[in-house]
Amino acid sequence: MPDTLGAAVIGLGMMGQRHARVWAELPGTRLAAVYDVNADLAAEQAAAYDLSPAASLEEALSAPGVDLVSVCTDDRYHLEPCMAAARAGKQVLVEKPLALNLADADAIIAACDQAGVTLMVGHVVRFDPRYQAAKQAIDAGEVGDVIHVYGRRNNILASGKRIGGRASVAFFLGSHDLDLMRWFIGAEAVRVYAESSRKALADIGADDTIYTLLKYDNGAVGCLETCWAIPEGVPNTLDARLEVVGTAGRVAVRVGDESLEVAGHDRARRPDIAYGPVVCDLQHGALRTQLEHFADCVRTGRPPLITPTDARAAVELCVAVHQSLDTGQPVVLR
Amino acid sequence: MPDTLGAAVIGLGMMGQRHARVWAELPGTRLAAVYDVNADLAAEQAAAYDLSPAASLEEALSAPGVDLVSVCTDDRYHLEPCMAAARAGKQVLVEKPLALNLADADAIIAACDQAGVTLMVGHVVRFDPRYQAAKQAIDAGEVGDVIHVYGRRNNILASGKRIGGRASVAFFLGSHDLDLMRWFIGAEAVRVYAESSRKALADIGADDTIYTLLKYDNGAVGCLETCWAIPEGVPNTLDARLEVVGTAGRVAVRVGDESLEVAGHDRARRPDIAYGPVVCDLQHGALRTQLEHFADCVRTGRPPLITPTDARAAVELCVAVHQSLDTGQPVVLR
Amino acid sequence: MPDTLGAAVIGLGMMGQRHARVWAELPGTRLAAVYDVNADLAAEQAAAYDLSPAASLEEALSAPGVDLVSVCTDDRYHLEPCMAAARAGKQVLVEKPLALNLADADAIIAACDQAGVTLMVGHVVRFDPRYQAAKQAIDAGEVGDVIHVYGRRNNILASGKRIGGRASVAFFLGSHDLDLMRWFIGAEAVRVYAESSRKALADIGADDTIYTLLKYDNGAVGCLETCWAIPEGVPNTLDARLEVVGTAGRVAVRVGDESLEVAGHDRARRPDIAYGPVVCDLQHGALRTQLEHFADCVRTGRPPLITPTDARAAVELCVAVHQSLDTGQPVVLR
Amino acid sequence: MPDTLGAAVIGLGMMGQRHARVWAELPGTRLAAVYDVNADLAAEQAAAYDLSPAASLEEALSAPGVDLVSVCTDDRYHLEPCMAAARAGKQVLVEKPLALNLADADAIIAACDQAGVTLMVGHVVRFDPRYQAAKQAIDAGEVGDVIHVYGRRNNILASGKRIGGRASVAFFLGSHDLDLMRWFIGAEAVRVYAESSRKALADIGADDTIYTLLKYDNGAVGCLETCWAIPEGVPNTLDARLEVVGTAGRVAVRVGDESLEVAGHDRARRPDIAYGPVVCDLQHGALRTQLEHFADCVRTGRPPLITPTDARAAVELCVAVHQSLDTGQPVVLR
Repeated sequence: MPDTLGAAVIGLGMMGQRHARVWAELPGTRLAAVYDVNADLAAEQAAAYDLSPAASLEEALSAPGVDLVSVCTDDRYHLEPCMAAARAGKQVLVEKPLALNLADADAIIAACDQAGVTLMVGHVVRFDPRYQAAKQAIDAGEVGDVIHVYGRRNNILASGKRIGGRASVAFFLGSHDLDLMRWFIGAEAVRVYAESSRKALADIGADDTIYTLLKYDNGAVGCLETCWAIPEGVPNTLDARLEVVGTAGRVAVRVGDESLEVAGHDRARRPDIAYGPVVCDLQHGALRTQLEHFADCVRTGRPPLITPTDARAAVELCVAVHQSLDTGQPVVLR
Repeated sequence: MPDTLGAAVIGLGMMGQRHARVWAELPGTRLAAVYDVNADLAAEQAAAYDLSPAASLEEALSAPGVDLVSVCTDDRYHLEPCMAAARAGKQVLVEKPLALNLADADAIIAACDQAGVTLMVGHVVRFDPRYQAAKQAIDAGEVGDVIHVYGRRNNILASGKRIGGRASVAFFLGSHDLDLMRWFIGAEAVRVYAESSRKALADIGADDTIYTLLKYDNGAVGCLETCWAIPEGVPNTLDARLEVVGTAGRVAVRVGDESLEVAGHDRARRPDIAYGPVVCDLQHGALRTQLEHFADCVRTGRPPLITPTDARAAVELCVAVHQSLDTGQPVVLR
Repeated sequence: MPDTLGAAVIGLGMMGQRHARVWAELPGTRLAAVYDVNADLAAEQAAAYDLSPAASLEEALSAPGVDLVSVCTDDRYHLEPCMAAARAGKQVLVEKPLALNLADADAIIAACDQAGVTLMVGHVVRFDPRYQAAKQAIDAGEVGDVIHVYGRRNNILASGKRIGGRASVAFFLGSHDLDLMRWFIGAEAVRVYAESSRKALADIGADDTIYTLLKYDNGAVGCLETCWAIPEGVPNTLDARLEVVGTAGRVAVRVGDESLEVAGHDRARRPDIAYGPVVCDLQHGALRTQLEHFADCVRTGRPPLITPTDARAAVELCVAVHQSLDTGQPVVLR
Repeated sequence: MPDTLGAAVIGLGMMGQRHARVWAELPGTRLAAVYDVNADLAAEQAAAYDLSPAASLEEALSAPGVDLVSVCTDDRYHLEPCMAAARAGKQVLVEKPLALNLADADAIIAACDQAGVTLMVGHVVRFDPRYQAAKQAIDAGEVGDVIHVYGRRNNILASGKRIGGRASVAFFLGSHDLDLMRWFIGAEAVRVYAESSRKALADIGADDTIYTLLKYDNGAVGCLETCWAIPEGVPNTLDARLEVVGTAGRVAVRVGDESLEVAGHDRARRPDIAYGPVVCDLQHGALRTQLEHFADCVRTGRPPLITPTDARAAVELCVAVHQSLDTGQPVVLR
């Protein structure tokens, strides 16, 4: 590998723009190419980094010095850029969820495997220091035999309105915690049951809230709450929890009552300080850490924190959630 | 009704002792008789109030000046004292849950109805000002069309060890919130599914945690978490929540990060200040408010906040939870 | 004393209206007379309770069946109604602070003493179960030798705008905690120093914030923050704290992140559930408890929780705060 | 400057060990030398990084490839290594506070200035994303004209016992927030008054708590609470706050009720996730960010976030605190 890794970013929405900025700012990496189906957006982002926008996916992948690729396209369109990147022998970092069905997930995994390139899916919450420290406490035995795990990932309604037409709340929010719950407790779900409600987003055909119960192969029970219809007036746009209770103790991550509050005469808000804060004019937080980690894995060959198996499991669980909603029955997984 | 209402308390465990104290302290009521199958306990409590302990349930009910009866026996033994009190024409206040099965619940309701006496079940959380104010906000339209309701009632392991042999966590803790959720959203559950875990209390044959999903007849979805195996080292012995999210807003009650914390050099704790605090040497809090309310209903004839229909519904839901756990299938209620 | 105590309420602003309602609702008391210099307000309140409004202070005090008097006039005008009530032999409950200077405070205390009537000042926070339980923990030795005590009582700007022309933030808010801090730690201040800031309320000649440092005769140090210019957009209108740290432990009351939150699409708020919540259509909370306590003291002759000495000490400390602000120097008290 | 900056770490206590690890882990820097007066400690740390321990300060500074120096010695002993580093032409990063008196502070500043090397003092909290985002909100006008600023930095008693013999709580904890308050509100203190209490640490001659009031040249008032005698049983070892209230709004950072809690059957604790968490086996958090920033300033020549003037101001304020404690009078600064 060269001293400085070159990155191409495919898909330049909010997440793609953050990837681009971090690749440009990190010591040891540089932004080498950007591409988006929206040519104006691509031009604008390219200009910000003194690049020429790529005219096609292929052009971006074959730009000089591209070692790795950030796939940040809409969740529905991960397959093509991931397959192309693998074929081009580029290391692949793709936004979560890996895919919206198992066929696509398996195809991407196989392609990367065959091409001998590293594949990591950006389950970014794993790089949040709170979840890292929680995982360390669990691994140190502070929970003991796991009794239950409760996850929550709720967003304000603006999130549901923005994404609801493109992915379900289970795939968009739930995939984070279905992965985290499995990572934390080191067990596989054997039974999945879900219930949902559809009111605020009924007009766009999306569920507002999905509750999922999971029975794990270690006897533990899990519950996941995902809602993207929280009223806009709450101080924090994200309300997330992950609590593991066991025979020896409880490890709880609670995101939402953040330590920073800004209030005016009309309302109060709690800005994000975990995922994308700017510190001394640089993009910091868990996304930056994730990209640093991926670059380090590419450089050193060590396996990424999120393996293809992990990423596939998250997709499998989301699929099971929807199968349960469709049938009204628990889904037996193994 | 006489100016001062006389109360008999049947069952003198922790809750019975609190009933006794409040009846003795409230303006307008007095403690007239106490009874427990444990004669020593009865003697001790009677002595504290300058009474003679009743030698039997019947003797307590027929003591001079008894107008109303607090039934605070073990959850398994509500039937006999309630039936006897109704037959004796006494007003009946019975601790929640009304019964552990629908046959007992129906028998008690019928007996009180026939005797023309008031029956109220002590779903005490309804008298907590936080839940009262939440209900008022919901009734004022601040939630809109209900999307979901999340309830939680978790206790430390000591609670599971103490009660686990006598009632399930669904009946002991869940009956509170199954009632509150129904009260808050004004809808009936049509489908109930539950999953459980049994580890810390496996030796006494009790579930540690039960998760319940509910689908309501207004399209809303509900989730209830009940666990009585929380590690003892947490600052608060009770962790309870009731959050209602709707198209117009969210009303959330969060009990646990209480406003009072006492810390020493070994650990921190948050004493109860909602249900049984002592203020100026008198028992205060929601239990006192509940007893005041019951006395007021008896005096004025107005209907109690918790009707027999409400109390029966809580029992029905607990029964459905266990049916789902037994069958592994969702239970369709109506 | 008669079985049912009759109360006259003098001054029918927000607090007076609450006193009136509680006297009307409490078992064992009744509302016997109301008076306000604003005749329309008096007529309106009287009508709500099927009374005729008194045409004068004297008429209210001499109304049939008046045993006790709630003085709820503007803080500047406590002297006249208290003196008149004492002369008329009525028991006196007066809103805090007792007076805005020591001469008035001493005159009222002397008059009540001479008349042999009970005088209690409504330092209502003492009746909040959180502060009661905190005091119990301190008295039980859980703090040990007191190192420091931090008090805070902050209100939103609307409060400063409403009251700022009539009393200072030290008298209006600070008198609560100067009393509570002294009650909690059982020590007298020997030195007082204060600093203030005046911006949002400069146009009405009032300080926005006053910070006060106190050195106590037991070696402990205290700090009090009072501000009534908090931006209106915060969820809770009151942000109060009382934290006592000692060699053995810490007892902390934190009011503000209340357990009830109501959020809409524009903002979130935390309704009061401690001082004036309505439960089952009755006024509940600390104010009701305070009035119950005062009625009980009148009935039984036991001394009220807040003695005239306590009430005077709060006035003395507020006076010292202003003396320090005026001179820029610490004020030595004893 | 070379591509990879070499760092020497002088003083290998807790902070020095963290500096060493970060210099060793950061892309673009390497650990080139370590030194401590405790030779065993130096040998141990050197071995961990495959280095030979320096036998003297001079040897460390003249080790091959040393570009910059982290001075992490005891707060009392910053002068000598800073002066030596400046003389040797090395860039100087020194732990806060710069010095315990103004003479030392001025000498170090002059030496670095004369040598033309960058001097930055590690006021690490400035690199915490919460404080960075707070500063950004203030700079964006969300506070308006500042009314008051409240700072708190409290540690458990273990901290006071460990450091109390070497520095005061004002220098050790207070210097952080005296700097932050000044940075946040962009004003200079004109008057300082302090009160203290000494009980738990009386035997080692240290104050437990110091309260400081500050009047600023923009009319705002400030209050700082510093205590290092908090009982050990609290869940979080650090309780810190910085709240700025102004005519337009409030920006509040509250550190302590952290989002991660670990509870066992004996007690609960909240691990640090802000200053020194380990993420994917690497040292992360604000200290790493601070070192990255310093390396970036050295590389690019841009001025560090904390200037010598800032660092001197923090020392000046700590000195004024002690002068006020000594005289019992407010200290006028300008």
